Amino acid sequence: MNDLFLRACRREPVERPPVWMMRQAGRYLPEYRAVRRRADFLTMVGTPELAVEVTLQPVDLIGVDAAIIFSDILVIPQAMGMALSVEEGTGPRFHHPLRHPADFERLRPVVPEEGLGYVLEALRLARRELAGRVPLIGFAGAPWTLMSYMVEGQGSKSFTRVKRLLVEDPRRAHRLLAQLATAVGRFLAAQVKAGAQAVQLFDSWASALGPRDFREFALPYLAEAARIAGEAGAPVIAFAPGAGWALEEIAAATGAAVIGIDWQTDAAEAGRRLGESRVALQGNLDPCWLYAPPETIRARTHQMLAAFGGHGHIANLGHGILPDIPVAHARAFVDAVKEWRPR
Amino acid sequence: MNDLFLRACRREPVERPPVWMMRQAGRYLPEYRAVRRRADFLTMVGTPELAVEVTLQPVDLIGVDAAIIFSDILVIPQAMGMALSVEEGTGPRFHHPLRHPADFERLRPVVPEEGLGYVLEALRLARRELAGRVPLIGFAGAPWTLMSYMVEGQGSKSFTRVKRLLVEDPRRAHRLLAQLATAVGRFLAAQVKAGAQAVQLFDSWASALGPRDFREFALPYLAEAARIAGEAGAPVIAFAPGAGWALEEIAAATGAAVIGIDWQTDAAEAGRRLGESRVALQGNLDPCWLYAPPETIRARTHQMLAAFGGHGHIANLGHGILPDIPVAHARAFVDAVKEWRPR
Repeated sequence: MNDLFLRACRREPVERPPVWMMRQAGRYLPEYRAVRRRADFLTMVGTPELAVEVTLQPVDLIGVDAAIIFSDILVIPQAMGMALSVEEGTGPRFHHPLRHPADFERLRPVVPEEGLGYVLEALRLARRELAGRVPLIGFAGAPWTLMSYMVEGQGSKSFTRVKRLLVEDPRRAHRLLAQLATAVGRFLAAQVKAGAQAVQLFDSWASALGPRDFREFALPYLAEAARIAGEAGAPVIAFAPGAGWALEEIAAATGAAVIGIDWQTDAAEAGRRLGESRVALQGNLDPCWLYAPPETIRARTHQMLAAFGGHGHIANLGHGILPDIPVAHARAFVDAVKEWRPR
Repeated sequence: MNDLFLRACRREPVERPPVWMMRQAGRYLPEYRAVRRRADFLTMVGTPELAVEVTLQPVDLIGVDAAIIFSDILVIPQAMGMALSVEEGTGPRFHHPLRHPADFERLRPVVPEEGLGYVLEALRLARRELAGRVPLIGFAGAPWTLMSYMVEGQGSKSFTRVKRLLVEDPRRAHRLLAQLATAVGRFLAAQVKAGAQAVQLFDSWASALGPRDFREFALPYLAEAARIAGEAGAPVIAFAPGAGWALEEIAAATGAAVIGIDWQTDAAEAGRRLGESRVALQGNLDPCWLYAPPETIRARTHQMLAAFGGHGHIANLGHGILPDIPVAHARAFVDAVKEWRPR
């Protein structure tokens, strides 16, 4: 039984840092693409057997030290009644984004065991199939990121629709964010009950907010979701890419056991800034560096590991692995972590 | 003659901070859209009379304290021989992005007075028409940002093509960046000779790079362009949005008189961090806040001004003004600066 990941989450001594990759169950793997040819993305997310099949692939094929359940952050808005499509290339899209007050009123409350039972079932199944080989991670999108998608309808460059809502109708925004924080926190707690041994909160669009807005509209709800999730007893990982300036505030407000570090943040500086916070750090190799020749990947991975210092560190990329990375390069990253030893 | 802007660039005492807005000659102005109906974007850029007409509009209509010449950062790659289209909504696009080594070899050297004479002519004309009312600003894209566009072919979310180039063929990247630094620097110096009283370097895609890559592929070439431009004697403004972590390094490496601050960076913190650097700061109201009611705009503008402290500060947005901002809101921002006084 490989429990390196859980020990690192708790900042216990480790022989070497554990390693996994965000989006490790993904298109860079031919075996993933083979499943994907049989079923579209949302069918895979919605069918526990398929979700578990791809969840386990990187454990078997790449040798990562943790599995993360294959799912999507938008399952929560979907469970609230918003119809969703995911098309290759263009990304996810809500058919009817929140545009009018009535759209907000129509949203249904989320009862994880009902609307999201298929995710919980996938976790139970994955935990059984892993049989203790490596720990299993659950996840959810953070309230600000979910609201952004729900208002914009899809990915955005400037997030003007949702940011316009923040200044034009802040009370409506706060109401939805509070509703989402409860839903997200309870969903994560239910994931722990179903078998997740750690849960990660993704505030993927934190970068759309300046400090004032981040502190008003993102951080308190990320913290509330983390608080509710934390009551289930498993380590919580908080990851807000693009908000590297806020690491200390995120650590303090969320009380998360692990803080995710994005690739834009200097690893050594993150370590210095969070040294007092008694959190573990996760990250942060630039995913684009996996295009480099394996020897370069190895050297940069070792530099990154040294910068984090070896203990209380979970090796990862600073963002999801890109779909056109050669499998051999993903393996070079994982192998480079496995051969390295802290001083 | 209003020389507030130039005095603030030199950190001389001012009655109040000067104010202008990035992209102030733009679609939010009905008078701009009227010109735009007569000519497409690249025709406007390429026709000095049209460029000057829209350059002066915000001076007359909004009362800003500086004019910035209407142009585009992509005029340099265009002058190097790359065919460009700009379509409403989708943004600029190169017909044949740099994909193969031969594409890089084909690029022509830039002689500003020849290939970019129309921009210099627009500056001469604008300076004459302004007749000293407010100072005139020239600008150019920084080498990293230009190379990104040239390799990607258009705007990008993850910049994987150009970042792949950095790890797969760093020497080719360095050669092009060096070529661009010279071209950009000389073009800015020529703009000063043609009448620009300050010049701004936009490293708009600095956010695509982590610290290591920024220090290797963006900063040295931004600095070299700033150095060459600076020899012409006018203040240089360096603006690298999304690289707020690097403010001190940008100030030190470029020797720029003014450092642009993006809206993601806390104003007071920027002031503290650059306090020793003897530079003026420019920025940084979140452009999305101009969606707010005018009273809110006024309050937040005053808070921003107070955070910068009043001296050695040029009030601006932290990014370009958005096309659907009501004119009255743009004016509320400018008026809020004009009524404010430093302590």
